[in-house]
Amino acid sequence: MDLRPIDIRVVLCQPRNPLNIGAAARAVSNFGFRHLRVVKPYDPAFREAVSAVGGAPVLQSAELCGEVADALRDCTLVVGTTAIGHRELQQPLLTLVQAAPAIRANQGPVGLLFGSEKFGLSNEELAFCHHLVHIPTSPQTPSMNLGQAVAVCLYELIREPASGEMPLGPKPVEGSDAEQITRMMLEALRESGYTNRIVATSIELKVRRFVRRIRLTSRDAPLVLGILRQILWKFREKG
Amino acid sequence: MDLRPIDIRVVLCQPRNPLNIGAAARAVSNFGFRHLRVVKPYDPAFREAVSAVGGAPVLQSAELCGEVADALRDCTLVVGTTAIGHRELQQPLLTLVQAAPAIRANQGPVGLLFGSEKFGLSNEELAFCHHLVHIPTSPQTPSMNLGQAVAVCLYELIREPASGEMPLGPKPVEGSDAEQITRMMLEALRESGYTNRIVATSIELKVRRFVRRIRLTSRDAPLVLGILRQILWKFREKG
Repeated sequence: MDLRPIDIRVVLCQPRNPLNIGAAARAVSNFGFRHLRVVKPYDPAFREAVSAVGGAPVLQSAELCGEVADALRDCTLVVGTTAIGHRELQQPLLTLVQAAPAIRANQGPVGLLFGSEKFGLSNEELAFCHHLVHIPTSPQTPSMNLGQAVAVCLYELIREPASGEMPLGPKPVEGSDAEQITRMMLEALRESGYTNRIVATSIELKVRRFVRRIRLTSRDAPLVLGILRQILWKFREKG
Repeated sequence: MDLRPIDIRVVLCQPRNPLNIGAAARAVSNFGFRHLRVVKPYDPAFREAVSAVGGAPVLQSAELCGEVADALRDCTLVVGTTAIGHRELQQPLLTLVQAAPAIRANQGPVGLLFGSEKFGLSNEELAFCHHLVHIPTSPQTPSMNLGQAVAVCLYELIREPASGEMPLGPKPVEGSDAEQITRMMLEALRESGYTNRIVATSIELKVRRFVRRIRLTSRDAPLVLGILRQILWKFREKG
């Protein structure tokens, strides 16, 4: 088995246990992937995680990110993992089996997002996701260990030899462009008086989810950014 | 998801790390299974393994076994897991995807055997297996963490809803009968002068593998045991 053509960035959000970071790195290695990004880990000593026998090179090249947006900057598809808790989900929820073909066929890097061991993905982190997947677990014990969840997700992606799944249509927008569009839209909403301080947070998540939901292509990005830049210029000229 | 109709006994042979035992127990719970058996663990404090959040009931009811034969006594199919090392394998080797249908369709409990973290399954443990499976990992990092390997194997077994796979033919012989046949055959070989002390161990493994390979049914067992009992009686009468 060679390094997989599927380009996956495993992104751990706020992990608390260095052993889990090591176990995730080992699974990344086991299944022939390379990229691990860790957002705001609890323990900054994560590079020394001891359980990463064999996973060491992946762990040494793991990227420490201050923000989830940064960890997803080059991703054209972001898939969040969830054990399905109490929260109302705002994105389509698929089983891992259902989600795998789209992940394998995606044009460009895919961000696979895992939440903290205790709380899973936060609403802020979920807003970056195009869709969510869950591993079908028992209702009595739905929540998996982080390292085991990473292993199962990556296994599903490689369990069958790559088929002739052909990417169709234009390339989706990258994470950094999607996020720039989000921020400029939010700025326009603020400047226009649409947003006040009380609703600011909920508007921010709504706009972020909206920008992911409409699946802009990389060709759309310059157009949308140009329009937003013009609107903002106009506001400032008048102000 | 209810408790699975597939009747799996996860058997950990000589595990050394209580965290891995806890992680295996958690995966057993996550995927709706119940039975964990632990053969000669390095650390007898395995019941207190801390990582078993949510896996606790499975861990509390885990069976401590002195011998691998005891852990497989009720199993009509035994599947060993291997990362494919240097050893010559004596049993058919399948990928997990290839092995899963036979495991799901088996009549009676299936023993899923995992070796120690450091050495995998020993030749003695392998001799109890009807066939071997491997998870397709990267040649650069073939060896998986024990808890993650358990999770991936169980996930494969439950990832699709049970199909109409119907068990065909008579029920296979249980592990305890297969082992009794093995031991009586070895006794007959010794008494007949076939075996000497120098080759005793290799003959034992050969006979054990042979008895698994021929896939006796539960109907064959009384017949074969009767024949062996008679042969042994005859030897003793003459002796």
